[in-house]
Amino acid sequence: MTDATAGARPRPADGAVTWALQLEYDGRPFVGWQRQENGLSVQQVLEEAAARLAGGAAVASIVAGRTDAGVHAAGQVAQLALPDRYDARKLRDALNYHMKPHPVVVLQAATAPSDWNARFSAIRRRYRFLILNRRARPALQEGRVWHVAAPLDAAAMHHAAQTLLGRHDFTSFRAASCQAKSPVRTLDRLDVRQDGPLITIEAEARSFLHHQVRNLVGTLRLVGDGSWPVGRVADALAARNRAAAGPTAPAEGLCLMAVGYPQDPFATAS
Amino acid sequence: MTDATAGARPRPADGAVTWALQLEYDGRPFVGWQRQENGLSVQQVLEEAAARLAGGAAVASIVAGRTDAGVHAAGQVAQLALPDRYDARKLRDALNYHMKPHPVVVLQAATAPSDWNARFSAIRRRYRFLILNRRARPALQEGRVWHVAAPLDAAAMHHAAQTLLGRHDFTSFRAASCQAKSPVRTLDRLDVRQDGPLITIEAEARSFLHHQVRNLVGTLRLVGDGSWPVGRVADALAARNRAAAGPTAPAEGLCLMAVGYPQDPFATAS
Repeated sequence: MTDATAGARPRPADGAVTWALQLEYDGRPFVGWQRQENGLSVQQVLEEAAARLAGGAAVASIVAGRTDAGVHAAGQVAQLALPDRYDARKLRDALNYHMKPHPVVVLQAATAPSDWNARFSAIRRRYRFLILNRRARPALQEGRVWHVAAPLDAAAMHHAAQTLLGRHDFTSFRAASCQAKSPVRTLDRLDVRQDGPLITIEAEARSFLHHQVRNLVGTLRLVGDGSWPVGRVADALAARNRAAAGPTAPAEGLCLMAVGYPQDPFATAS
Repeated sequence: MTDATAGARPRPADGAVTWALQLEYDGRPFVGWQRQENGLSVQQVLEEAAARLAGGAAVASIVAGRTDAGVHAAGQVAQLALPDRYDARKLRDALNYHMKPHPVVVLQAATAPSDWNARFSAIRRRYRFLILNRRARPALQEGRVWHVAAPLDAAAMHHAAQTLLGRHDFTSFRAASCQAKSPVRTLDRLDVRQDGPLITIEAEARSFLHHQVRNLVGTLRLVGDGSWPVGRVADALAARNRAAAGPTAPAEGLCLMAVGYPQDPFATAS
């Protein structure tokens, strides 16, 4: 069970309480995490539900990973402040009630220290990317996987992935729209494993550049289908040039699995 | 990869070839496998695609497990006859093309002996039922799981399940609408295991009565939430009375995983 109880933690001076929320959502119907003019965002669904609890006052949220349109989350973490009149379970249930029928739910809620920040306090993000590698298009996993019909060599993809681990300038795998000040990131894990037609890629780092995981996957796919030798992936990294790497894999295969903090904000969960 | 090639097998005298098809489908948009007046069935989608390959002539199919509305399949097996002008891969791809955009695909196709029957030659069916046991409703697994918010004791459910194994009169777990001549079945496996909030129930038998798996799950849930002691499940079986067992679990948690035959019809798959 993923219940949470309120911890005895410091509270902001203005009388409001900072809440940490663990979220699951299906990315398909959304324009992404962030509010946009052109459609419904996860942020809007969450903030509008929270506003109903705050008597209509606007509630602003901060999120650990600003997922793109179509990207899913099983363990996103968000932060918002509310007047102090909920216990953690009731808050979770009330937000879930108001977010219906959208495919977004709060799994856990816990009060957080006033100096905690869902985005900047995070020290670890783990993403999972799924490739359905078979001839037939997905029926059961439509919208959750990248369908690649050509046979892929997952062992070669894994081998190539290991050449990307560590601290590097990831300019070659960074979206043109990326707003990060530095292209340097430390990639701690990039595992590729196969189970029947399903290829699972697990990526872990303190933080990622915009589109980094999808660009890594789109490049590894070129190794998998034999277009590239394993060694060309390290060459693409060294080139520090987006044009040297492969295309961006589609959003639908990507899911934010977990966000890590120095202290688990949900440690008091029951 | 799940490719298949045509095997050198006997053919029906009328010049048509019997095909075995392994199917995956999402049960949500369908009224079930079987054709019905009130909506679209998986059978209709498959047979209409096959009719287009047969020059418009009607094609009748036979299926191993006639799944109900909302029930999914990852390894259904169907049979149909077509004029001999396809190899197995081309047939699979052509059927998948014509079944778009419905969430039904042929995973494998292979020619079958003329005395093979998708339903009556089957000697094993394996179903999986998923329960999402947590407070928050499903976001990522909506339509694929039975959401049970009350905490369940999966170990007690597994213990109770083991008292149902073997050859028994399963009248207590049989739908009123069941058309089988005998209520006696041999249940070979009924495993309940938990992984975080997900409880997976695997059921295996030569064949099942109508609603049998869903009625077994609905009864085990009563053990899981503490409403029933473990021993009452065996009492319910012994009563041979549908009213003695628990309610029918919802269709959305159920998936037909695999069908077994004395000889694997897809053994020639490449």
